[in-house]
Parts: sequence; C-alpha cells; structure tokens
Amino acid sequence: MCAMSDRTPPATGRLLVSGCDVLRVPPEGECEILRARDIVVTNGVIEAVRPTGTTAAIGPGHAADVIDGRGLLAVPGLVNAHTHSPMVLMRGAAEDVSVESWFNDRVWPMESNLTPEDVRAGARLACAEMIRSGVTTFADHYFFPEQIAEAVAETGLRADIAPTYFSSRGEAALEDTVTFAEAWHGRADGRVTVSLGPHAPYTVDDGDLKTLGGHARRLGLRMHIHAAEHLEQTRSSLERRGITPIRVLHETGVLDAGALIAHGCGIVQDDLPLLAEYAGTTAVACCPKVYLKHALSPLTPVRDLLDSGVAVAVGTDGAAGHNTLDVWEALRLVALTQKQAVRDATWMTVSDTLRLAMRGGARALGRQDEIGALEPGMRADIVLTDLTGLHCRPLHDPRAALVYSARASDVRTVVVDGRVLMRDGRLLTVDEPALLAEADARVARILDTSHGRAVQHYDP
Amino acid sequence: MCAMSDRTPPATGRLLVSGCDVLRVPPEGECEILRARDIVVTNGVIEAVRPTGTTAAIGPGHAADVIDGRGLLAVPGLVNAHTHSPMVLMRGAAEDVSVESWFNDRVWPMESNLTPEDVRAGARLACAEMIRSGVTTFADHYFFPEQIAEAVAETGLRADIAPTYFSSRGEAALEDTVTFAEAWHGRADGRVTVSLGPHAPYTVDDGDLKTLGGHARRLGLRMHIHAAEHLEQTRSSLERRGITPIRVLHETGVLDAGALIAHGCGIVQDDLPLLAEYAGTTAVACCPKVYLKHALSPLTPVRDLLDSGVAVAVGTDGAAGHNTLDVWEALRLVALTQKQAVRDATWMTVSDTLRLAMRGGARALGRQDEIGALEPGMRADIVLTDLTGLHCRPLHDPRAALVYSARASDVRTVVVDGRVLMRDGRLLTVDEPALLAEADARVARILDTSHGRAVQHYDP
Repeated sequence: MCAMSDRTPPATGRLLVSGCDVLRVPPEGECEILRARDIVVTNGVIEAVRPTGTTAAIGPGHAADVIDGRGLLAVPGLVNAHTHSPMVLMRGAAEDVSVESWFNDRVWPMESNLTPEDVRAGARLACAEMIRSGVTTFADHYFFPEQIAEAVAETGLRADIAPTYFSSRGEAALEDTVTFAEAWHGRADGRVTVSLGPHAPYTVDDGDLKTLGGHARRLGLRMHIHAAEHLEQTRSSLERRGITPIRVLHETGVLDAGALIAHGCGIVQDDLPLLAEYAGTTAVACCPKVYLKHALSPLTPVRDLLDSGVAVAVGTDGAAGHNTLDVWEALRLVALTQKQAVRDATWMTVSDTLRLAMRGGARALGRQDEIGALEPGMRADIVLTDLTGLHCRPLHDPRAALVYSARASDVRTVVVDGRVLMRDGRLLTVDEPALLAEADARVARILDTSHGRAVQHYDP
Repeated sequence: MCAMSDRTPPATGRLLVSGCDVLRVPPEGECEILRARDIVVTNGVIEAVRPTGTTAAIGPGHAADVIDGRGLLAVPGLVNAHTHSPMVLMRGAAEDVSVESWFNDRVWPMESNLTPEDVRAGARLACAEMIRSGVTTFADHYFFPEQIAEAVAETGLRADIAPTYFSSRGEAALEDTVTFAEAWHGRADGRVTVSLGPHAPYTVDDGDLKTLGGHARRLGLRMHIHAAEHLEQTRSSLERRGITPIRVLHETGVLDAGALIAHGCGIVQDDLPLLAEYAGTTAVACCPKVYLKHALSPLTPVRDLLDSGVAVAVGTDGAAGHNTLDVWEALRLVALTQKQAVRDATWMTVSDTLRLAMRGGARALGRQDEIGALEPGMRADIVLTDLTGLHCRPLHDPRAALVYSARASDVRTVVVDGRVLMRDGRLLTVDEPALLAEADARVARILDTSHGRAVQHYDP
C-alpha cells in the first residue's frame, strides 16, 4: 500500500494532459466536445484548456508530468452524491428481498458485525473501485468515519463524509460525530470535507436533528440525511405526526444548514414550495438502481425538483443494494427512468444527464465553484475516457456514448486535485491484490447474522 | 478479415475448457455454481461437464485445444432475442426524441440510405460487438438478410435471421423473403436459421400475414414480428379494427406457425388466454432499455406471460435505440424494471433473470434442445467470464454478480459451436481495425436525411 498520508503535500508543479478532446458541461444548455485540447494544471488547479500545440509554457523550471491524451475524451470527474462506501463488503449478499427484509434480516444485522478494521478495508476497496470507474468525488454516510477519511486521504480521492448517527446510539455518539467533523473537515489538502449525518427523520428524533443542525450552522457544515426515501415513509410521517419528512427537516433546522437529501422518492407536491425556499443550498441525490431493485414507485421527482431550483445529483447508494459504485450505470438509469417517469422521451437529455452527474454532484456537496467542470480555476479532477471500443462505434456523438454506451471499464486515466491516481488502467495509490486479499478474509464473519443483533430496527 | 465462409467445416476434434467454475441453469429453481469443472467438447457438442482432473480422455488420437479456465466462470452463451444488428451504424444518432420522431424523422429516413454493403459492414460490426460481450446467438430482423447471414457465417456466431417485410414493398419483396429462407435456413453448419419477418400488424396487411404464415408452416420456419409494442398500438388496433394486435396474429395464422413477438408491452389481459393456447411455441422478447428511453409504460407483462406458459427472452433491440448490443445490460434492466413493475422485490430473482437470458432465449428461437445451458448433448456455446474485478469483489455470490455487477468487459473467452471466437480478449474471426475503418467511412452518408425519403411512415 502506497503510504500517502493526510500530510502528503498537495500535487505541486505542472501536469499537462495533451491533445485530448474535452467535454464542456455548461451550467445550462447543450454539452459540447472541444476537439484536440491541452489541459494545463498547476498546483492542482486547471490553469487553461486550450487548443493543443499552443502550450509552450512547459519549459525550463516547469518540470511537467505529461499525459498523452490523444484519442481520449477528458470529462469532469464523476460525483457519487450518495453512498455508504464500506458496504462494498456486502455486495451481492442481500438479493431478491423486500426493503423491510433487506434492512431487518440482512443489512442491519450484518452491520452490527463491523469493526473499524472492516470499515477501513471496505472504504479502501470502495475508493479503488471508484477511481477505476472515474468517480473522483463521493458523498459518504457511514459508521467509523475516521477510517473512511483515512482511506480517502491515502488513495487521493475527494470526499464529503457524514458520520451516520441514530438517536438510539445516545448523546455521546452525537458528540463523537461533531468531534469527527472538527478534526477532519478540510483535511487532506481540502479533499476531505465533513457533513453532519443524522440517518433519517424516522431514526433520529427532532431534538437531535435540532442539535445537529445547530452544530452544522456553528461549524459551517452541511447536513447529509435520508429523507422521504419512498412514498410510504411520507404517508407514515403524515399519519404519525401530521407533517411530511421534508417539513420535519425544515422545522428542525436541517434545511437551514444546507442539506443533501438522499433519495427523496417520497417528496410530494406540498414539499416543493418549502424546498424552493432553500433551493440554493439544498440538493437531492437520486439513486435509481436501488429504487427499481426494491420495487419502489414513484421515483425521485427530478423534474419537479429542478423546476423548484433544487439541485439534483446522481448517486449509487451502498453496494449492498446497488452492487457497484458505478456512476456511469447510475446516470444512465437516471436518464432512462426519468424519461419514463414523466412519459416524455425528449427530456432528461444527454446533456442534462451529464450535467446532473457532474455539476449537480458538485452542488450537492456545496463545491460548485471547485469541481464539476473542466474550466480554468477549477480543481483538476479529470477523467480520460476511451470511446474507441466496439460498443461505442461508430462514434456519432461522444456525449450520447457517455450516457448510453460507455462503461466504467472505458476509463483509462484519473486525476484528482492534479494528482494522477490511475494511469492507463493502473492504480497508483492502491495495492489491489493486498486489498482484495484483506477484504476477502473479512467477509465470512461479516455475513454471519446468527447472533440476532442489528444496528437498528426498520419501522419508518 | 479471416475468411471463414459458410463452407468452412464445423469445429472438429476436441476442445477442453479446464478447471473453470460452471453456471448451471436448471429449467426451474435456483441456478448453481459448480466448482472446478472441465468442460469437454467433441465436434461442437458438450460431451461432459465433470470435476477437473478427472478428464483423462485427452490422449493420443484426440489432439485437443485446451483453454485454461481456472479463475473463470463458464456461463451459457447469452441469447439476444431481438435486434436489428446493422443498426449499430446509427448508434447514438437518434437521442432524446419521441417514438414518432425516432421513426419518422430519424431512423426510417436513415434506413432509406442503406446499401447492401452498409448492411454487410454493420452486421459484422454488430457480430464483433456481440462476441466481445458474450452473446453467442441473436435473433435478427432486418433488410438485406443475405449480408447478415454471411456475416454470421464468417464470424462464427449463431443467429436466426428474419428478413424484414413491409406490405408497402409489394409481392416480389415477399417472395424474396421466402427465397432467402429457402437458401439460408440451416446453413453455416446449422448456425444460421431463418424466420419469416413481417414487420408488424400495422405495417403488414392481413393477407400478407396469412401468406407468410402459410410459407412458414410449409417450410417448418418460425415467425419473428413486432406486435403490441406498446399500449397505444393495442388501443389503436382496437379502435381501427376491434381486435388486439395479438388477436390479429392468431387470426392470420402467425401464432400457429410459432412466433417470436418483439416487445409486447401492449399485451393485455384478454390476450393471455389466446397466447396460452400457443404457449409451447410462442415467445416474447423483452428489451427494457428502449422502452424506458422512449418513455413507454407499461412494460412487457413478463409475469403474466410466464404464468401463461409463454417463453420470455431478453433482447436489446437495435443499437439506434439501445446504443449497445449488450445483453448483460438488458438482462439487468429486465430484473430491475420487472421488480418495480409488479411492486415485488422478491420476484424476477437472480436465477430467474439468468434463465430468461439463456434458456428463455433458446426457447425464443425454438432451439431449447441445443443451446441455453452447459450440459452434455448441448451445442458448445460457452462464455468464460472473469469476476475478479473490483466491481465484483468480495464475490459472495457469482450469480448475483452476473446480474447486478458484471459488465460485458468481464467476458474473456467465447466459444460458439465448439469454435473459439474470442480468446482472452482477442477476436479471432474479425479484423477489428479494418472493420471499424470501413464502418466509419460509411456513416456520414447514412446519417444524411436531407433527401426526405423514408422506408416507411410510422402511424400504428
């Protein structure tokens, strides 16, 4: 394992990605392909995107690492806007079950087995998988957050980490999440940020939501929370307490702190004016594969949310449901399912879909001024894709190929914050065989649910 | 281009795939993983699947080609039960449009540009893509069927080819389809079969359907037809003539010949008893990616069809809609969308989904005694998959990994009829660079729709 600690200095000097095509993702309108560009990176920041051959500045005193990008398309790094990264350890271990059974019979019992060392291994495995698939930033929500933060620092990714909190864990656990935030927010050269992570309105009481919201405002942090995951939860909230889960977030100050809401399939019309009040700081992460797999309907009301000014981003959720951390797969499903959901094949276009997964993801983390586009002044999170495979040919429209043909395996080279994490398919910050062996050695114990314990009971 | 003509003799001698795990797909119940097996193939047929190391028969007089399968999972070749293979030439050229616009403004005008040489290039490109992704058999429906048949014969795949017929093309065109069938059915060592291919009940009149049905019965052929593609077509048929498209197939003798029905999203409850009468010889190909993309709802009523005894198979449809010919992607979407469609996460299980794409596909082509499973007596259509990638690890359940984690790029080696078509990622029957160059040279002309012609007008 390459020892890149938190204290590893940021990428300094220059990086030149030469001769690649570049996907331009504007804030609105059609994406464009800029042909034959050089991307010049200085100290982790994109300095210029200019026609290739015009870059004379890589001269004496500027020892530059040069990546030959000819024949490749550079795209902004994908943002996985909602996941539970260490759950890769449970990939494929909870299939063909209802939501209730998934939580109560499988996942929450398995999670009661997890040790910090398990989470450490799982988070690294997840980081490696995400680097391989061109995800450069992820929003995580899980237990043992220090282990995840260290994995992010070491592997070179960018992440916002929310320590999962249930009220059943008690006040000391709540304080621990604040302590983690104070210790880690902004660390690893700014690649690690922290949000506060109450699990959901049905597992965290209003008092704790208010307390966490207060801490978030005091510390300048955002919140990351599951809410209105599906319509039954909204109905249940209305029956039990007369208001929707989204209104709970409003009344407890969660929305006021700035919130990333996971799923939101149960967001109803009455919630939209409320969300619109917080539009500039609110985002919803849509993770359609798990909604389909768990037989949920309706899906996240993406059109309504966008019409209300709320940011929408693309997530995978954890791999115990999604089976991969592949945002290409997730963004394709967003396009496909959203077209069907509103019965309009002409919306959620190729350009809109790419924008959600890139700029939308950046907004979901409150980092829209730093990531989500390949433009001067942005952090250099660059993914080089190879669209020359048979499944993309003839390549009439590279944008359509990205949404509807490409696979994670078409990613060749990944740069985060100006540092090369994968080069031509070779991971540079992860010892894959050692990591896989460690993960494999842990799983039999994790899958054993004969003890009858669980981290929580699902009854929203 | 490797010159493997129709007259190339079948694979003779022995092939041994040694030490692989094997996916057993039973006619019903759970699929199983058989660990560490040898697959022994003689003259294109699976002779035995036995524990590795017990295969002593590869001795003198039996010069065998040996594929080291250790670390790989052998699965039955996937069946793409409905496609229009040469449409790979239009991949990504008709995005974000309604069904009507897709047909009338894009695809049918582009198709009016096609020459036999275009179809020849497109079919070969499609065959190459399918081999790479582990598709060993496909059911095609297109123009210039001779060109497709030659591509199949040369590349070594297995296919059932239905020459697309519209009544607007006239009697001579109908006779041509019958002539093609007589010339090609059973050729290429039996790898090429022919079905008769009236396009749809809304583009082929009842007289022609009856005539084609009669030819099919006379020649012992099946029919392959689009019908009840979506609910609006069923409603339109009921309004215009008082019966559903499925009943049209019954009254014109199409079902009596044995039919592969493409899509069937508009199959209604009243159709089910009728289809049940023909259950043993009827199949429906479900291609969910294009239904979602075209914003259609409902989807193919898979549960009702299976309950009626009708075979259901998995298809991609053409790449102008599906963008790939990737049956892994298609089968995953069948599982996900069917769970959601009936609001039951516990059905369309991992095992059921694999069965549809393998045995279901075989039934769709009437070849259930020859392909769809890796068992003694079956033709040797074997796909070796590598599930050691990060996106599949830890590998708790290889069956779940096949449905929910694996990608076409995880296919390493492909055998059809005992002949190796791809070996460790290298295509053996296709000159990829030459093929891609030829396809690329043709596309500008194909995409030009300024002439205003079209092969047909869509008004179902």
